[in-house]
Amino acid sequence: MKLGVCYYPEHWPETWWADDARRMGEMGLSHVRIGEFAWSRIEPEPGRLEWDWLDRALEVLGDAGLKVILGTPTATPPKWLVDSMPEMIALDAGGHPRGFGSRRHYCFSHAGYAGECDRIVTQLAERYGQHPAIVAWQTDNEYGCHDTAVSYSLAARDGFREWLRRKHGTIAALNQAWGNVFWSMEYRDFAEIELPNLTVTQANPAHELDFRRFSSHQVAEFNRRQVAILRRHSPGRDVVHNFMGFFTQFDHHAVGDDLDVVSWDSYPLGFLEQFWFSPEEKRRYQRQGHPDIAAFHHDLYRGCQREGRWWVMEQQPGPVNWARYNPAPLPGMVRLWTLEAMAHGAELVSYFRWRQAPFAQEQMHAGLLRPDSVDDQGAHEARTVAAEIAALPDPGPPPRRVALVFDYTAAWVTDILPQGQGFSALRVAFEYYSLLRRLGLDIDIVRPGTDIAGYALVVVPCQPICSADFVASLTGLSAPVVFGARAGSKTADFAIPAELPPGPLQSLLPLKVVRVESLRGQPCEWLEQVETGLDEAGPGIFRHGQLYYVSRYPIDPQIEQVIASVAANAGLDCIALPEGLRLRRTGNLVFAFNYGTESVDLPPGALGKFVLGEPRLPPAGVAVGVAR
Amino acid sequence: MKLGVCYYPEHWPETWWADDARRMGEMGLSHVRIGEFAWSRIEPEPGRLEWDWLDRALEVLGDAGLKVILGTPTATPPKWLVDSMPEMIALDAGGHPRGFGSRRHYCFSHAGYAGECDRIVTQLAERYGQHPAIVAWQTDNEYGCHDTAVSYSLAARDGFREWLRRKHGTIAALNQAWGNVFWSMEYRDFAEIELPNLTVTQANPAHELDFRRFSSHQVAEFNRRQVAILRRHSPGRDVVHNFMGFFTQFDHHAVGDDLDVVSWDSYPLGFLEQFWFSPEEKRRYQRQGHPDIAAFHHDLYRGCQREGRWWVMEQQPGPVNWARYNPAPLPGMVRLWTLEAMAHGAELVSYFRWRQAPFAQEQMHAGLLRPDSVDDQGAHEARTVAAEIAALPDPGPPPRRVALVFDYTAAWVTDILPQGQGFSALRVAFEYYSLLRRLGLDIDIVRPGTDIAGYALVVVPCQPICSADFVASLTGLSAPVVFGARAGSKTADFAIPAELPPGPLQSLLPLKVVRVESLRGQPCEWLEQVETGLDEAGPGIFRHGQLYYVSRYPIDPQIEQVIASVAANAGLDCIALPEGLRLRRTGNLVFAFNYGTESVDLPPGALGKFVLGEPRLPPAGVAVGVAR
Amino acid sequence: MKLGVCYYPEHWPETWWADDARRMGEMGLSHVRIGEFAWSRIEPEPGRLEWDWLDRALEVLGDAGLKVILGTPTATPPKWLVDSMPEMIALDAGGHPRGFGSRRHYCFSHAGYAGECDRIVTQLAERYGQHPAIVAWQTDNEYGCHDTAVSYSLAARDGFREWLRRKHGTIAALNQAWGNVFWSMEYRDFAEIELPNLTVTQANPAHELDFRRFSSHQVAEFNRRQVAILRRHSPGRDVVHNFMGFFTQFDHHAVGDDLDVVSWDSYPLGFLEQFWFSPEEKRRYQRQGHPDIAAFHHDLYRGCQREGRWWVMEQQPGPVNWARYNPAPLPGMVRLWTLEAMAHGAELVSYFRWRQAPFAQEQMHAGLLRPDSVDDQGAHEARTVAAEIAALPDPGPPPRRVALVFDYTAAWVTDILPQGQGFSALRVAFEYYSLLRRLGLDIDIVRPGTDIAGYALVVVPCQPICSADFVASLTGLSAPVVFGARAGSKTADFAIPAELPPGPLQSLLPLKVVRVESLRGQPCEWLEQVETGLDEAGPGIFRHGQLYYVSRYPIDPQIEQVIASVAANAGLDCIALPEGLRLRRTGNLVFAFNYGTESVDLPPGALGKFVLGEPRLPPAGVAVGVAR
Ligand SMILES: [Zn+2]
Ligand SMILES: [Zn+2]
Ligand SMILES: [Zn+2]
Repeated sequence: MKLGVCYYPEHWPETWWADDARRMGEMGLSHVRIGEFAWSRIEPEPGRLEWDWLDRALEVLGDAGLKVILGTPTATPPKWLVDSMPEMIALDAGGHPRGFGSRRHYCFSHAGYAGECDRIVTQLAERYGQHPAIVAWQTDNEYGCHDTAVSYSLAARDGFREWLRRKHGTIAALNQAWGNVFWSMEYRDFAEIELPNLTVTQANPAHELDFRRFSSHQVAEFNRRQVAILRRHSPGRDVVHNFMGFFTQFDHHAVGDDLDVVSWDSYPLGFLEQFWFSPEEKRRYQRQGHPDIAAFHHDLYRGCQREGRWWVMEQQPGPVNWARYNPAPLPGMVRLWTLEAMAHGAELVSYFRWRQAPFAQEQMHAGLLRPDSVDDQGAHEARTVAAEIAALPDPGPPPRRVALVFDYTAAWVTDILPQGQGFSALRVAFEYYSLLRRLGLDIDIVRPGTDIAGYALVVVPCQPICSADFVASLTGLSAPVVFGARAGSKTADFAIPAELPPGPLQSLLPLKVVRVESLRGQPCEWLEQVETGLDEAGPGIFRHGQLYYVSRYPIDPQIEQVIASVAANAGLDCIALPEGLRLRRTGNLVFAFNYGTESVDLPPGALGKFVLGEPRLPPAGVAVGVAR
Repeated sequence: MKLGVCYYPEHWPETWWADDARRMGEMGLSHVRIGEFAWSRIEPEPGRLEWDWLDRALEVLGDAGLKVILGTPTATPPKWLVDSMPEMIALDAGGHPRGFGSRRHYCFSHAGYAGECDRIVTQLAERYGQHPAIVAWQTDNEYGCHDTAVSYSLAARDGFREWLRRKHGTIAALNQAWGNVFWSMEYRDFAEIELPNLTVTQANPAHELDFRRFSSHQVAEFNRRQVAILRRHSPGRDVVHNFMGFFTQFDHHAVGDDLDVVSWDSYPLGFLEQFWFSPEEKRRYQRQGHPDIAAFHHDLYRGCQREGRWWVMEQQPGPVNWARYNPAPLPGMVRLWTLEAMAHGAELVSYFRWRQAPFAQEQMHAGLLRPDSVDDQGAHEARTVAAEIAALPDPGPPPRRVALVFDYTAAWVTDILPQGQGFSALRVAFEYYSLLRRLGLDIDIVRPGTDIAGYALVVVPCQPICSADFVASLTGLSAPVVFGARAGSKTADFAIPAELPPGPLQSLLPLKVVRVESLRGQPCEWLEQVETGLDEAGPGIFRHGQLYYVSRYPIDPQIEQVIASVAANAGLDCIALPEGLRLRRTGNLVFAFNYGTESVDLPPGALGKFVLGEPRLPPAGVAVGVAR
Repeated sequence: MKLGVCYYPEHWPETWWADDARRMGEMGLSHVRIGEFAWSRIEPEPGRLEWDWLDRALEVLGDAGLKVILGTPTATPPKWLVDSMPEMIALDAGGHPRGFGSRRHYCFSHAGYAGECDRIVTQLAERYGQHPAIVAWQTDNEYGCHDTAVSYSLAARDGFREWLRRKHGTIAALNQAWGNVFWSMEYRDFAEIELPNLTVTQANPAHELDFRRFSSHQVAEFNRRQVAILRRHSPGRDVVHNFMGFFTQFDHHAVGDDLDVVSWDSYPLGFLEQFWFSPEEKRRYQRQGHPDIAAFHHDLYRGCQREGRWWVMEQQPGPVNWARYNPAPLPGMVRLWTLEAMAHGAELVSYFRWRQAPFAQEQMHAGLLRPDSVDDQGAHEARTVAAEIAALPDPGPPPRRVALVFDYTAAWVTDILPQGQGFSALRVAFEYYSLLRRLGLDIDIVRPGTDIAGYALVVVPCQPICSADFVASLTGLSAPVVFGARAGSKTADFAIPAELPPGPLQSLLPLKVVRVESLRGQPCEWLEQVETGLDEAGPGIFRHGQLYYVSRYPIDPQIEQVIASVAANAGLDCIALPEGLRLRRTGNLVFAFNYGTESVDLPPGALGKFVLGEPRLPPAGVAVGVAR
């Protein structure tokens, strides 16, 4: 696995560049990402392109032996461009413009802006497509960050109407699909359809779901245009985009299908603070992050690229600036996170960023270097881990043990219609994932319809819409399959299936969900009333051969126990791991990570022969063994 | 009492209608409400009226012996209508449009829309006014739902100016009435007056109160136009509207005065979750609703129709979709709620809805039938209770024992100027009501000025504005009258009375409230400093003959004890009921309802001779006795 | 010290004026503030000025021997004026107008409105500038109240661009100063710059800070124009403005520099409820206010006028109307607050208001009189304290013992970039102040750069931007100086200093803050990692000679102990005061105030010879001694 760093030559005096590049190399970094926010420096005035500085930056970095990932600068169009087409600005759900002054100030549906992006990406790719230092391109930056995947602009409205026309064909078909007879919501023409915001009460969920699909489609289209240009002008280089954590506003599988490599930006401490974790978990793991946050995303994004190629494009190197509270990682965590990415199959971990910028929005975001250029804690750990990685055996291919099914549409369905406060398909998926990880298992997160032959266990945490292909993929499996609540509860048009939930899964599982209720809790409790002749494998858990249906949520010890025994019966090696300890196998290596605040003894024999670390793991400790 | 159901023939294949109608009859239902959201099916294009399907639906239902309540479709104008007059859309307090895409997307003050409503209601009434199956008309649906009674549109502004001109006559009179000299808020002309939104800090409460009165007046006017058309074209049929729970945005007495029957939509579980109840109450009663929610509204709405004629137009039959959490009713609760409506004098209970719709916004709202047409729990209970009702003796007229005074202006006053967070006249009224019900008493909720001769006890929980008529109605009563805090604290123009609170009540009660304070709490604690020579009947409770003034809030055991002894001295039969148990007498019947989660023994002798149930009531149990 | 009252003759029948004036005098009041909301009465139509009533009011008040403070009415322009220039309305951060209907409905940057203010102030000053009854002028009222110091109007945008041009000179300089290279935020011209609202995510903090500075500058300019007019037409009278509590939206030092007297509006109970105090403190002190709220502002605003001249322009006399909860002051608190102002050097305490207005927004705000003109509790206490003040010896000049440094830019910096939720420079300043007061110390709150020679102790709670002047003012001091966290952490352009925090303070204190972290808490915990060779005077507290750096927050017992010992070593007389007790020395008088709910014994000898009160202080009790 390689290490890299995100670097902004335009932020620093040119006289510093060569020394920065030299220090990167000495630290063990081989890759450097640059350029993704530099449009105002590349094109300071309309049509006046300033390549010189970038030519020189690439030269300096290349001369130092660094491999460059060059970003397209489309996440930050300059002010002159925005002023030339003010309608390119996205509108929020309240109808307010989301204007210039930070970043991502554009609507994915605006044709004029798309044209400008084509132009600048083409110009960049023409100039640097064959540059020897460049090994990869990053398209834009963090699509959707700051809730920008969705826009309620006129451009989005017009695009949505056209998308609907293509999808539904006739307005009668759309009215039928959405159930618009309800509340007289029927349209006579696609031109009558509005975006599903600014309604008196909630819009039709079918309307909302199609708008989510459309918005996701626009992101994928936007990306695809850049990919096509880059492929044309820069063949042989990887095209990559950097995804985010716990983010589902577009279909990452669809975008990933157009990429050579999927990458993501890993900020375990900020994600712990900003998401659904309990106050107690936020306290306990404040300097480590929850032990499953990074791993979950590693496994999720590995599944977003057809060949499983993935990177960490931005790795948290110290405190960040954007969470409510911003602790410093426990010493050793930067090393731990790096090795954990390796254990999950990353090709590259790139730290964000080289030197802390003393100015502007992210001035409190740590880098590997302090603002005064002294090595910060992250630099020390990067240097250490670079040496360790070099010394470790090749990790080999990831195992195929447990497949956990997740897709983005599921998240949209539960966002749109949670039915009980706090119900979120993403959260459910994470919690099932975490349960499996506490048993010491290795997981692939796969999209529905993936070929899952060879897995010992399949878990489908929350899959409201089950396509015929998905049902077919599960038919005749020998491995056990565990379905969580709400499986098959909706048709593709966001309706209850005629045969009731779990809809088409009834061909596999002879049961019918005849009523659901949600009770107070954080998240809500979810209880389904099931009609079936099947036996219960536990309270509310129905079994049909190798298929299990868990009709309740949240996951409690009884559910855990059933799943543990299903896994054990499937031949998986389950270990009840101590709090904060996690294992990960890849090839014949076994990694152990201690996210806890206390030292912990590894389960005897779990790691085989130690090639890194020792059987007693300190906090933030890592050990690696070679399986016997 | 009759039973009915809400039905949407336009949601189902026409081939299903006859069987649906037959099953309704077999279930014991005699009434069916239809049509209130069907505008886009009645008039799919401007001026093209499609009556055929509705003709056939009425025929099928009528042939099955069902009595039809036909709704006017004005709560859901079709898209083409909205597009023809976009200014008909209401604006929220922030100035944002509340557009098409759900329901209730209209401003009550828009003349163009009012004209369209006149037209469609006339067309409907002309066609079906004499139809033999039709026994009643419902105007629109749930006026004000989703906060729609108030709009900040230009039409509302112009209407408000005109309404003010008619009310105040001259701008000088308005300036004087509102106290506009304060902060130089004086106007020179009615045309200078804006709506009380988008102000820098709170608007003049007198301005806000007049706007609330105006907005309420617009709702009543809107309804009155429909009533007049329906009366003209369909004489002899009842005209009814369906009100909501815990909703005070317009004066329901004023609207009720134009109706033959008042009805309301009873969703006890959703109301428990969405309103002010404590987390512990929300847990304890999650599957039953708080034991006083349904009864409070029954007694409130019975008082909103001059002759006391009232229905439940929509009765919750299972889990709903619109609360934060949506539990399923305890088995038996649908039956209990139905019998409780009977105990409070309902003529009809109509379940919402026949079959759960698998599509659109309410797809998670249960019906009597499941989406697959199988009887759901509500159907079983409806069938049972239909038979029980048929077997019960006639309930006879409601008793006149305790009168609880409430009006909508009181709610507006405390909304506008709570003075302590959480103070709400509606909540205070509910809490006094609940106190009296825990003593086993029967209550009429009456508007101020109602003839209250013959009541053994009168309670006035929170009546800030006391008119001369109201004071006169209390003068010379022999029954005790209990006033809660804030009585008589405001003039009709939202000012402190010259003689200080309780203003005109000082002619009855020699005391003066010279200072109030509100302290932290949920709701706030409210303490009044009173100047009086009267004795205290308890801490802060002053007595003058048969008149009591409770200068504190919330209700605590000391207040409860005083009121219990006042009631007992007035000859009322007070019983300290166990948790969750409630009694209700009507005619010579006595009903008992167990809202608790445990079985409970009825107080010996409380029910006389049992005609339904037994002395030990299980959860959700009902017993009925004939008083000896 | 003198006493006064706020009076609104326009609210009352003219026949009441003379008696009101007589009663004021009898009560011991010598001053009366009038006129600040009377524009619609002074100029009921454009250009038609109605002076008669005001002539008569001044005559009546003057005849009764009262000294008048006349307010300019610019906080409440009449409707006709707003309608003549609708663009004068401020816009909120969401772009919504903040319109007519309450008060403060204007944008500080609107040239047209500024012209109208010039005109009306000139007309007022011409007419009454030489009036014998008038001793002072109040400009406008509570600048910034209801978040009005900042506006996002077009006028503000244009003003901001011009202000930036004057400050930065060239757009290149601005781009450099703000670090606009980050995220391609570079501008080509000042005309491209927008206000920092409606951005996708947070705007550049440098952009925000300049906008805060500009907005503050506009307030100061607005005030300065009025001051100039008043000085020209009414020489010899004091010009004053009334500031608010816990309010930092503009630089009060800058505005104070243009005033003869600074005044503030003291509402201890409302401020306790509305600000950051814990629920327990809100309960304990609900009827007294936190013991340091009033004193903090007295000491803060005394420092906002170059000669230390200050008044309380509005003193809470009973319950108010504007907090979430509005308790009544404990009997005696109005007297206590009055004497406490005296102890801190006030020249005048003026109660708000004479008689409770029974109408409009503040009808629940107590006055000295009840709405029925009877003396309320405040009147009794005012009468008592007037006599006591007359009997007390002259208080003499305030001591110079402890200087606590605070400036408004610090509050803007932490508002803009708290980095940990709840971090606020104002709150930090208050908490250090409170710590010092619990030790019985006397404090001056001074702006950075003030001459602090002669103080025994200097405390700098939170000063992110340290100018060269400020650093120079601390150089060579013999007194100990204690710096709180974040000192010197930003440059004037909102960047991290090249040498890292504490930036220029490193010339005094050899330490470097190399990392900060914020942890969950309310407020956040703040921990700095420091590189230094210095010894710790306590955990995380570094000492260099007489200079101390406290690298942690919040203040805990260890920090308190260090500061107490620093103060004691500096020769200050520290006493650990019991809960709720506070002392204040001025001249040779020593005041003691009991904010607690229990009686308390004064520390023996603390007061010298008693001239008021006794050694055992009841709740709300005050004692005064003459130091021996
Ligand atoms: Zn808005
Ligand atoms: Zn981001
Ligand atoms: Zn509704």
